[in-house]
Parts: sequence; C-alpha cells; structure tokens
Amino acid sequence: MPFHRYRPAHERVQLPSAANGTERDWPNARTERAPLWVPVDLRDGNQALAEPMGTERKRLMFDMLVRLGFKEIEVAYPSASRTDFDFVRHLATSGAVPDDVTVVVFTPARPDLIERTFASIEGLARVVVHLYTPTAPVWRDVVLGRGREEVRALVREAAEQVARLADARPWQHIRFEFSPEVFVLTEPDYVLGLCNELTELWDASQDRPVIHNLPATVEIATPNVYADQIEYAHRNLTRRDAVILSVHPHNDRGTGVACAELAVLAGAQRVEGCLFGNGERTGNVDLVTLALNLYAQGVDPMIDFSELDAVRATVEHCNQLPVHPRHPYGGELVHTAFSGTHQDAISKGFAHHARRAAELGVPESQAPWEVPYLPVDPADLGRSYEAVIRVNSQSGKGGISHLLRTHHGVELPAELRAGFSRIVQEATDDSGRESTPKELWELFSAAYLEPGEAGPLLLESWSTEETASGEHRFTCWLSGHGVRPGWYEGTGNGPLSALTRALEGAGLSVTVLDFVQHATTAGPHSPAMAYAYCRTGDEDRWGAGRSTSVLTASVRAVLAAVNRAL
Amino acid sequence: MPFHRYRPAHERVQLPSAANGTERDWPNARTERAPLWVPVDLRDGNQALAEPMGTERKRLMFDMLVRLGFKEIEVAYPSASRTDFDFVRHLATSGAVPDDVTVVVFTPARPDLIERTFASIEGLARVVVHLYTPTAPVWRDVVLGRGREEVRALVREAAEQVARLADARPWQHIRFEFSPEVFVLTEPDYVLGLCNELTELWDASQDRPVIHNLPATVEIATPNVYADQIEYAHRNLTRRDAVILSVHPHNDRGTGVACAELAVLAGAQRVEGCLFGNGERTGNVDLVTLALNLYAQGVDPMIDFSELDAVRATVEHCNQLPVHPRHPYGGELVHTAFSGTHQDAISKGFAHHARRAAELGVPESQAPWEVPYLPVDPADLGRSYEAVIRVNSQSGKGGISHLLRTHHGVELPAELRAGFSRIVQEATDDSGRESTPKELWELFSAAYLEPGEAGPLLLESWSTEETASGEHRFTCWLSGHGVRPGWYEGTGNGPLSALTRALEGAGLSVTVLDFVQHATTAGPHSPAMAYAYCRTGDEDRWGAGRSTSVLTASVRAVLAAVNRAL
Repeated sequence: MPFHRYRPAHERVQLPSAANGTERDWPNARTERAPLWVPVDLRDGNQALAEPMGTERKRLMFDMLVRLGFKEIEVAYPSASRTDFDFVRHLATSGAVPDDVTVVVFTPARPDLIERTFASIEGLARVVVHLYTPTAPVWRDVVLGRGREEVRALVREAAEQVARLADARPWQHIRFEFSPEVFVLTEPDYVLGLCNELTELWDASQDRPVIHNLPATVEIATPNVYADQIEYAHRNLTRRDAVILSVHPHNDRGTGVACAELAVLAGAQRVEGCLFGNGERTGNVDLVTLALNLYAQGVDPMIDFSELDAVRATVEHCNQLPVHPRHPYGGELVHTAFSGTHQDAISKGFAHHARRAAELGVPESQAPWEVPYLPVDPADLGRSYEAVIRVNSQSGKGGISHLLRTHHGVELPAELRAGFSRIVQEATDDSGRESTPKELWELFSAAYLEPGEAGPLLLESWSTEETASGEHRFTCWLSGHGVRPGWYEGTGNGPLSALTRALEGAGLSVTVLDFVQHATTAGPHSPAMAYAYCRTGDEDRWGAGRSTSVLTASVRAVLAAVNRAL
Repeated sequence: MPFHRYRPAHERVQLPSAANGTERDWPNARTERAPLWVPVDLRDGNQALAEPMGTERKRLMFDMLVRLGFKEIEVAYPSASRTDFDFVRHLATSGAVPDDVTVVVFTPARPDLIERTFASIEGLARVVVHLYTPTAPVWRDVVLGRGREEVRALVREAAEQVARLADARPWQHIRFEFSPEVFVLTEPDYVLGLCNELTELWDASQDRPVIHNLPATVEIATPNVYADQIEYAHRNLTRRDAVILSVHPHNDRGTGVACAELAVLAGAQRVEGCLFGNGERTGNVDLVTLALNLYAQGVDPMIDFSELDAVRATVEHCNQLPVHPRHPYGGELVHTAFSGTHQDAISKGFAHHARRAAELGVPESQAPWEVPYLPVDPADLGRSYEAVIRVNSQSGKGGISHLLRTHHGVELPAELRAGFSRIVQEATDDSGRESTPKELWELFSAAYLEPGEAGPLLLESWSTEETASGEHRFTCWLSGHGVRPGWYEGTGNGPLSALTRALEGAGLSVTVLDFVQHATTAGPHSPAMAYAYCRTGDEDRWGAGRSTSVLTASVRAVLAAVNRAL
C-alpha cells in the first residue's frame, strides 16, 4: 500500500508540547466530576443521516435528551435547510424547552446565514449562537481561498455581527460559541490568537462566558497529541475563568472517546458528542460511553442512563441506524459471555456479590460492584442478567450451571457439573450452534431426569410409611431390566435407604453415595429438585428428580441414577 | 444512578507511575514502524460468537489472514472443544500453514489441558504455546480461591510442564507466551515477578524469545494509565532483548485502539486483536483500525488492506456479525459526506488533488494525499469515490455538483449551482429523503434541459449556415407562447447570435449573457453539455442543452433559458 502518500501529524502541524517548551500535566490528572455534556445529535449527527430527521423525530430526540438530564443541546443548523429552520421555530413556539435548558444553533461566518440564524431563534429565552469558520491551512487554501489575515478579518466581522444582533435582543439571553475548523490541523498560535481576540470582542465574563470549542473534526494523531493541544490552549487562553474550553472529537481513528477523556484531563470543561456516536463518516464521540466510563470510575455522570435499552431504541429510531451489538455499554452482546472461563468467573462473581451484599446488609443493587469481566452491573443500566451468559461449544460448566440456576432455579451439585458439561459440549460441537437455556434444560432432562421414569427399571405404585420412630418402609411394584415383575419391600432409617433395600430384594445392589435437594422457587408450590449419586453394581452415576413433593423428587433421583448405570 | 458502587482504577490497583517514581517517556515517543500484529480472531474472537466457526469458516479466515500478510496467528483453544482441537489437526495435516507463518495455541495452566494442547499441535513446524492464568486479586480470590504464592506455584508448574513437553519435541520449533489475566488489575510488581521468573525458567534468548502478553481483558481506566503500566513493564522486564512485550486490549470503555497505540509508544512490540474488533462483550482491539491509523501517518502497516471491502465481507461471513456503517475505514458510510460544507470542501479538495498530481507529473493514486475530511484516499482501500458524497436536505451546491460531475460528466457553471441547489433542497426538504445521483439528474433535466424541448416556445426544423466568413444565418420554425407559427430567420457573428435575431423577429428580446460548453466524456461520441445564461425581456435565466452535436446542445440551452424565463 502506498503509505508514502501520507505524512505524520507532527510534520503537518507544529505540536504544542514543542511550541510550549514545557512538560504536560494531563497524564497525572484525574477526572473527579463530569464535564458539561452537549449532545449535537440534532445538528452534527443529523447532518450525517441519509434521511435527516424532520420535526417529529427531532422533537422525540429533543424530549429524550431533556429527560436524560442534558442542560445544553445543539438543536439545528437553521440556515442550512427549511427543515432545520422550522424545528427551531417549533421549539420557540411550542414551549418544549424547560427553563434550565439552553439551546445551541450553529452558523457559518456568513452575513446572510447569520441573519437567518437569528431569525430562527426569535422567542427563545436562552440561546448559544455557535459560529464556525474553517481555519486550518488546507481549508483556508483549498476551500476558502483566503490567507491567515483574511480569515481573521472574516471571523472578526462575523463575531461583530452576532454581537450586534444579540445586543439588539436584550430580552433574550444569548451567549456565543466559536469553533475553528479543523482545530487539530491549525497552527496552535493562530488558533489561540483568534480565540483570544473573540474573548475580548465578546467581552467574556464569568456571568456570560464565551465557549471556545476546539474540534478534532478529523482525527489526525494518537489521542495524547490532542491532549497536548488542549492543554496548550487551556494554559494560554486569556480571561480563562470567563472562557468555557470545549472539545468536539470525531472518531476517524477509532479514538474519539480517548481524545475526549484525555482532553478533559488536560483542561476541557465541555464535550460535544452524539448518543452512541452518530455523526458524519465515523461519527462524533459517543456521549453514552463517556458518561458511563465516568460512572464505572465512581463519578456521577450527571446523565441518567438507567434505562439504556430504551435510549438505544429511540436513537435507532431517530437516526435510522443500528447500534452495533458490541457497542460499549449499550450493544446487545456487551454483557454476554460465551467463553467457559469467563462464564465460570462471572458465575462465581455473582455468587460472591450476593454474599457480600448480605454481609454488608444492603440490597445487591446497592452493594459495591466487583464481578469479573463485567465493568458495570447490567442492572444499573436497566438490563437483566438473563442475557449475560450464553452457552455454545466454547462454554464451560460455570456458564451452564448459571443458566440452569437463573432460568430453571436448578442448582447443580458441583460434582454433577463436569459430567453434564461434557454432554452439552458434545451437543454444541455437533450442532455448531448456541444452546438456549431451554435447550440446556432439555439436555439435562433427557440425561438426568427422564431415566427416573423411562426405565429400563420401572417403579410403579410405590408408597412409604414411617413404621416406628426412625424406621421407614418402602413398598413398590418393580418391573423391567430382567427383574421379575412384582411387589417389593424394604426398610431403613429413611425412605431412600428403605428403597435401596427393596431394590436389593429385586437383585440390584444400590448404594446412595451422595444426595442433594433444593427448592427451585420460593413458596409452597415450588417444585423441588433432588440429585442422587448412587453406586449400582460397580457403576457410579448421578441422577435427578423433580416434583412438588420432596419425597417423589428424591425417589425419582435414585431411580434415575440406577437406570443411568444399568 | 448509584455511582458510589464503583471505585476509580487508582484505588483498585497501585498505578506504576507512582510505584515507579519516575516520569513517563511515552507521551514524547513516536511510532515509526508497525508492531507485530497477531490476529486472535480464531481463538478469542471465536469464543465470543453465538455460533463459533467450524473448520470450514476457520480455514476461510485463516487463509485470508495469511494472504493479508499476518505472520503469527492464534488459531485455537484446542482443549476447549473438539471443534477447536480438530481445526489444529486440520492445519497440521493439510499443509495450510506457509513456512513463514507461526501458529499460536492457547491453554490454561492445567496439566490435562496442557497435555491435550500438545496433542493437537503434533506435526506443526512452528508453534507458540500460549499459557494463561488468572492473576488479578478478584480472580485469585473469587475464581481460583488461591493466594499469591499458590498462583505463583501453579504458573511455575504449568511453565515447567510446557517446557518439558516442548523439549521432548525437538523437531518442532516451539516458543512460549504467558498472559497474566487481568494484567491491568494485578499488582504491577507481582506481575513483573511472574514474568521475570518465566523468562528465566524458559531461558529466553534472542533466538528463542519469550512473549509476555499483558492483557487489558477488561478496560478499567483511561488509556494513558494502560500506557503507564506498559512502560513500567517495559523498563523492568529482565533479559529485555529476549522478551517480546505484547499487549491484548479489549474495548469495554471504547478506548481499545487508544490503549494499543499508547502501549506501543510505551514499549510494546506485539499487539493481539481481531479484524474489525470482534471478541467477547465489546470486542478485542481492532487490527484494521490500528494498521490503517499507522498507514495514515505514513508508516508501512505491514498488512495489505487494499481490498478492504472484501476483507469486511469475509469477516462478516465468518463471524456472522455485521461491521457497523460508521466503523473506521471499513464501514459503509465512513467515506460518505452528506453535509453541504463538507461536500463543498471535499469536492474542492478532489479538484486540488488532481491539479497537484498533474503538477508533480504523477498519477493521482500516487500523489500526496491532503483532501479535507478524508484522512485516507478511499481508492487506497479499494473503494471508489462514488459513495463519498451523497445528497439530502443538509447538502449544498458543492456536493450536488460533485455528484453530477462524477456520475454524469456534467460540470455545472459556478453561477448555475446556487439556483440548482435551491431546487434540490426544496425537493429533499419535501421528501425528507436522500437524493440519489439519478434523482439529481432527473431534477436537473426537468429544471434546465426539458424547457429547451417542451415549450412553451417550440423550435422545430432549424438549420444554420455560415454565409460568409464570420457571418452565420439561423433559420427555424417557431410556434407556441403566442408566437405566430412560421419560419423565422436571423443573422449574426455566430449561430447563437443569429438565433437571437430570429427570436427577435418573432417578437422576443433575448440576449445571451454567458455561455459555457463541455464534453461529458472523452472521445468523439461524447455528448456535449451547453449552458446558456440569457436575458429574456427582463428575466435572467440559465438553461442547458445536451447533445452529441455541440451546435444542437447550445441551441437547446438558449431555448431552455428562454422558456424558463417565459
């Protein structure tokens, strides 16, 4: 491949750590509170859709963003299309914007488009007018055909115009945002000069701060380079406490999330992005991932993603694009484990979590989370545990046991698991497919339960009674497997030992080596599961039985073990 | 959301920059050559599929990986399933492994599974046996139920066993890899101790280096923290020139690519990942993105992704999972621009690129690449330009012109573009949909071409002749628009001025203000496009004509302009 056609970022733009001459602070920083998240789904994301949203879909998305807790929302590029203009008018006239939410509108630095932008916002109480201009060398040369000073003049004139138009509307609270496009490819000192000039011109104050938004509209380098660029701006912006340093990463190199995170370490206070990373080409940075990454570090994300599947459904509907099954936090498969080692660890982790919650005396949903392979509790995102573990030929006994436990209330004895796991693997190796919990149950039934009822040895019309304290009699009709059909009887210190004596009468030597029993659900109608490990002749086998009667379940378990050995 | 349930990474594991006491070097480093890429699609990726690959799909994937240029390929977890075991046997007996390719097989540190792993590789010339053990505190406590020293003993015994089994097979070239799981959550000094002990035990040498693979099986912190952890290992591994430092990032926080990149800056020499980021939960790091990120920086990626769509199709087939439309480099939409400003810039960028290639005297496919919003030339990845620009209500004249140029060979005059752009936007605002190039052409035809033939003024049976040098006569039958039907004639210094005189005879005042004409394709059969900007009465309008005859095209263009004004 002709790699010589490309130049590394450090040859294309003077990097600020060199320009700066000092070492960086961001690698030692920690993020302890969330930045201001600003969704641009309705503008930048919308511009990238084959079928852009109309007012109906835009309103659906806007209302959801408000419900989730976003306080600043970019809603349109009103001068770009009638659709976008109409949506801003809809917001202005429908009362859709709560008192604590500010809308942002986007405009290029062109007088007629700025006029139209201001026409759209009439009647909105709180607005950020977001002015952008191409500033990077290739953009200046190829797109605008203007030099540095000409672009500077163009920016200044546009900034004066928006200031003038805002001043003429004192009944609206209008603030300003500036984006030099593409920031990462622009000479750092040139960008800084433009930003600082606007800070003065717009008279930034703590009451009415100016937003300088420094976009990585196209990613051009590893994310540490972006962090260096942001730290350089952070250190050199004037009236720093009256300026909100904002970032706007895209994802061309697949590192948009990292760019945003390192930029926040470097001093950024505001992050523009889209839910699940929609946007032109590879998309804008994903605000869901960013917020939940903070959450997983114990930091309040300031956004409520506790019903993440519903958020995903709305985003997919509005964008008419799918969220990938492996998308962090929200993808269909991201809380699923197929591999045996992972399943085993997760299954043990769930059990450990339950014990720990009990020790602490708090509900599981409030206990500290530390389950292997699951960075966050799926329940915190409104997801059930059901899909966490799925079984195929790569799976092991941990996952299989977990599925039978969660779907059928069945707690397999540890010693039974290895044998059943081999049966499952044989089946999945043969089919090449996943086994659903239902299929696992069918495999289990066929292997361990059915032999208790299907023979070869058949047990019919049985009864048991306690003939004296601690003495039990077991009476039954036995047939099959060469046994002379007839009534048999035995006594012992419990029904099962009495049963084995009855079997002895029929010529079968059976010893119960191990026995486990449990209820499958709470309450009196819960079926019980019984597991018996028996030596029949010299064959040792597990069998299982299931019944609302604990006695019936245990008798079936013994008979199943016997029949599996015969 | 209950964020208090989670603790930040720095509270869960002692970070090495603190342990180390020194500052880091990686933020100043640059990657100037590709690390060794090791695809684990057939093992780690495969373990995460609802329907794992059988031998047929595995072989398809393996052959593609070899063709793309991978030299070390993890092929199976042979002790986990019969399917995986059988595939290693297939590779050993089918001659599928070229002389310069080494296969890797994965095994837990358990004697019976190690035995089975060695049984699978019989007959393979070059093998890496990849031994892994859980080492992180939660894994030791909850999964293994063993302390630090017990785990250390377990690792040592397994390492001795693999060394013994390898020594017994001197006819095979067997090397060793060790993965402490989950590295990022394990105490740094404990990991280092385990690794250095194995380096000695396996007697690592430059001829037979040992691979220490430090997995971020679950991402737990921002990627700079992983880089710190890797740099700490890089500085403190013994026999450093006989050790290959490998990384294995996953993508739980959406920063897998960044982790790998920063780890390489920090000293990693080998990266395990999957094509397009398949793998358990959110997937392994994506090797396609990593390799092409280097490519876009002018570094030889050492892998051939020049037919990326074919790679994507094979990966989608083998994994039975889609690649997302916005996936870096390979997604369907990543070289597509809908927004007007982007389209305009890209369109100008393409034109500039063509001029630059001509100036340099090289083909466009070899000229240095610097087109706005396109980090790499789509053609380098085997993609056509056709899909780059798509038009909807968010689009502008740049994109529309580009599509008509590339699909229909039509070069709209700059002055015509704004008017046509309004027509397109009206249509897309109404439909809410994308306009295909075919629909754009239909809109253009209806607006600019058809009026030349459909009236109201109709021109029939026309002819033109040069009556003297520089003097042309135009004769025609005119009807419609209140014109008395009949023959009209005019003379002028060219056919079009003669035509306007003929129109004058019919009572119409027409002046040609501007005129442009071009061929649409190369060669004698190319249709010509003509554009005429005419004042008819006091209405100024553009019209267009299309014909293999340049004369016919221009006459139609004038008539179209006249009819658009009438």
